[in-house]
Amino acid sequence: MKSTTLFKIHNRIWISSENRSFLGEGRIELLNEINKHRSISKAAKSMKMSYRKAWNMVDSMNKISKKPMVIRTIGGTGGGGSKLTTEGLKAIKLFNEIKISTNKYLESKIKTLDFS
Amino acid sequence: MKSTTLFKIHNRIWISSENRSFLGEGRIELLNEINKHRSISKAAKSMKMSYRKAWNMVDSMNKISKKPMVIRTIGGTGGGGSKLTTEGLKAIKLFNEIKISTNKYLESKIKTLDFS
Repeated sequence: MKSTTLFKIHNRIWISSENRSFLGEGRIELLNEINKHRSISKAAKSMKMSYRKAWNMVDSMNKISKKPMVIRTIGGTGGGGSKLTTEGLKAIKLFNEIKISTNKYLESKIKTLDFS
Repeated sequence: MKSTTLFKIHNRIWISSENRSFLGEGRIELLNEINKHRSISKAAKSMKMSYRKAWNMVDSMNKISKKPMVIRTIGGTGGGGSKLTTEGLKAIKLFNEIKISTNKYLESKIKTLDFS
């Protein structure tokens, strides 16, 4: 007789606003990369994504959140770039919190699985 | 000033066992269709899926759950077909319960979203 099977529950969440994509794994990764590189184009490159696509994602998030999540920085040694606002950092934090708590919740649910 | 934005959290769950797919939206739909049509080939057709693919999904679920989820029925007016076992019906029930409770949980989380 085989011993207990190990089940794992996987989970993907995404947030929309009035039928428009707002936040999902990809956009949160993009925000994280912009935060790291201080540049949309470098963030796009690190994700093997076109600049245009990354820019459109940022533009969409900025419009939905009203207070922008990513703003341009002008001048400085790097000649300007982009950075996350408090709103952008909050989005990453909230998304990750929801993801972690949902995963914890699902972990507790796994005990109800009994297919052995 | 724009009024409060309506956010919606979407969620997709799937269950694996030792790195093999076990249950997800597609497989649950397949089990439901087999239950409805009492036939793997009719269920596959209704999902615009090849019989081979449907059969492989059933075979994979049957092997992981140990007690089969779908069994063949022999004879009768329809000349035999397939039907769900108690185990198969339980899989649909558990998956839907987890899905519904996770959605409820996420609904409560939506209140933490404040991007207006």
